Amino acid sequence: MPLTSSRALVPAWSLPAPAPLSPALTPALQAKIDQKTKPPGALGALEVLALQAGLVQNSLAPALHNPHLVVFAADHGIAAEGVSPYPAEVTAQMVRNFVAGGAAINVFCRLHGLQLLVVNAGVRGSLADLGPAVRDECVAAGTRNFLHEPAMSAAQCQDALRRGAAVADDLHRAGCNVVGFGEMGIANTSSAAVLLHLLAGQPLAECVGRGTGLDDAGLRHKIAVLGRAVAAHPALDRADPLAVLATFGGLEIAQLCGALLQAAAHQMLILVDGFIVGAALLADARLRPEVLAYCVFSHESAEAGHRHLLAALDARPLLQLGLRLGEGTGAALAYPLVQAAVAFLSEMASFESAGVSSAPAA
Amino acid sequence: MPLTSSRALVPAWSLPAPAPLSPALTPALQAKIDQKTKPPGALGALEVLALQAGLVQNSLAPALHNPHLVVFAADHGIAAEGVSPYPAEVTAQMVRNFVAGGAAINVFCRLHGLQLLVVNAGVRGSLADLGPAVRDECVAAGTRNFLHEPAMSAAQCQDALRRGAAVADDLHRAGCNVVGFGEMGIANTSSAAVLLHLLAGQPLAECVGRGTGLDDAGLRHKIAVLGRAVAAHPALDRADPLAVLATFGGLEIAQLCGALLQAAAHQMLILVDGFIVGAALLADARLRPEVLAYCVFSHESAEAGHRHLLAALDARPLLQLGLRLGEGTGAALAYPLVQAAVAFLSEMASFESAGVSSAPAA
Repeated sequence: MPLTSSRALVPAWSLPAPAPLSPALTPALQAKIDQKTKPPGALGALEVLALQAGLVQNSLAPALHNPHLVVFAADHGIAAEGVSPYPAEVTAQMVRNFVAGGAAINVFCRLHGLQLLVVNAGVRGSLADLGPAVRDECVAAGTRNFLHEPAMSAAQCQDALRRGAAVADDLHRAGCNVVGFGEMGIANTSSAAVLLHLLAGQPLAECVGRGTGLDDAGLRHKIAVLGRAVAAHPALDRADPLAVLATFGGLEIAQLCGALLQAAAHQMLILVDGFIVGAALLADARLRPEVLAYCVFSHESAEAGHRHLLAALDARPLLQLGLRLGEGTGAALAYPLVQAAVAFLSEMASFESAGVSSAPAA
Repeated sequence: MPLTSSRALVPAWSLPAPAPLSPALTPALQAKIDQKTKPPGALGALEVLALQAGLVQNSLAPALHNPHLVVFAADHGIAAEGVSPYPAEVTAQMVRNFVAGGAAINVFCRLHGLQLLVVNAGVRGSLADLGPAVRDECVAAGTRNFLHEPAMSAAQCQDALRRGAAVADDLHRAGCNVVGFGEMGIANTSSAAVLLHLLAGQPLAECVGRGTGLDDAGLRHKIAVLGRAVAAHPALDRADPLAVLATFGGLEIAQLCGALLQAAAHQMLILVDGFIVGAALLADARLRPEVLAYCVFSHESAEAGHRHLLAALDARPLLQLGLRLGEGTGAALAYPLVQAAVAFLSEMASFESAGVSSAPAA
């Protein structure tokens, strides 16, 4: 078996294990927040975010350095079943659009000062002509069709996890301490829906949405296809998140799983985009729940399953704008709120320093 | 009567009348939005915002110039009734904090490239030592206590409206076409609550919130005081928004009323902050409903009455972060979303230009 022998050739690799956050600084951070010239709690979710940033960096003066947005792209065998209104070729076309700077994520990254990194996690067709503009972490030319066989082999899944972690390693080495993750992959809401169904126990029909814009008939078809796909793997151990990931995941999703864990292991603050990135995180959280403390949930998308996914993660998203684009656009749009949280913690005056009366009149 | 004679000395001034938006460009703008490389509607609220920006500027390529955030500050006679946990002196202290750069609104304006303008609309005590750092439009040293008498005379209200409009005139002259409005004034949630009650017909208790942080007893006291205040003006014509404004408003609220209308008359895109600015807009909208088309609702605040106010204005806010600080902080935090909307409309590639397949596979 080539897979076994190749596994034997590489050193043992285990899933990154983020450390639990130390709560030691919580009282001092909360006191610093409360001494700012505003009524206690008046900055709402930004105060929660400032506290989180301080705990993630274990610092009373957290700061954001070399912010990145990473888009993992890959193709999906299940696209052959007509679960998306767009043809699979759009994955590669959109990667070219990212490189040319014309996609929404390009615009938002430029606007908000995020460095964009595009990773080929498993796109069909060669992207070699794009050179280093796309990081080549291609595990395979897309997944297999999970209606008929597992999307990936265990070895491919492991390879994808490891490559995703390597991306986070390189960001950390470059001094990046805040990263947003996004994705591109026609049909990947199908993978994410099945992951949510199997890992959170939500009824399948509630996990499946219109993706890029299915009509009612298309949505019914997608639900039916995914129901048959789940039934086609009766021996799957649903309690094993990596087995679920290999069977129904995407190569970009598996790389996201590795990248999310490794970014947290490096104490990076992580901006989670939408439904797909959330599904990757759900798989991670079943194995390494500590990862969640490093995650900022950017937004609640219009994709039907996303609110169930957020509930399964006990997550409160920052934005509710009806976005359903992916690419990391929600993460990029939420980034200014993270900047604002860190900035008020650093820059606002205290009641004492500003000579403002703080004591309630009572 | 001095008020009458002074009125006779100045030329007649009438409330600014914003033009209704022309819908002529709607089809072309919507087509431009739909041809961007994304599924139709996938940018959710940002697409609505891009369309609005195009219509406000009557342009297929709207652009944001010289963005400003204006904070109107004033004191309130009703503060003497203990309706806020903070003493009235905090209004002036916070103006000094704005000038020193230490308030939340300073931090967010610096972060997002907004020019901050602080206007003394009626603060008690001299701010003369601050020089031109605060624009002096002081109508009076705070309003009177509306539990016993009208907050302003009709002439003061008119003066405040006119001064607010003059601020918008100067912004327009400086090339500003996008402005956020905020406020500072201890006890001004009391004014806003009564305005909402009288202008939208919402029961008073539902309009009154905890402001900067009243406890349960404080909230009950505030509701009782405001109920007595409303009853103290039985002859008030509730169908006359300017009479309601003069009786229960604040000088910063009246200046906001003038500034909002004049900014719209100059075809500026307006970022409406929270409960107080919304109350000013509600008074405006009763007289000049055309103003609403120019307004972007930044956020839904944690102040209890705000959701009723937004409902009365049929407004969908961009952010829901549990903010309750005022100062224009919600407007400043929403500004990057406005930038993103305008930027995607200008900068994103179309399906055709990027060579991305757009046709649904169906």
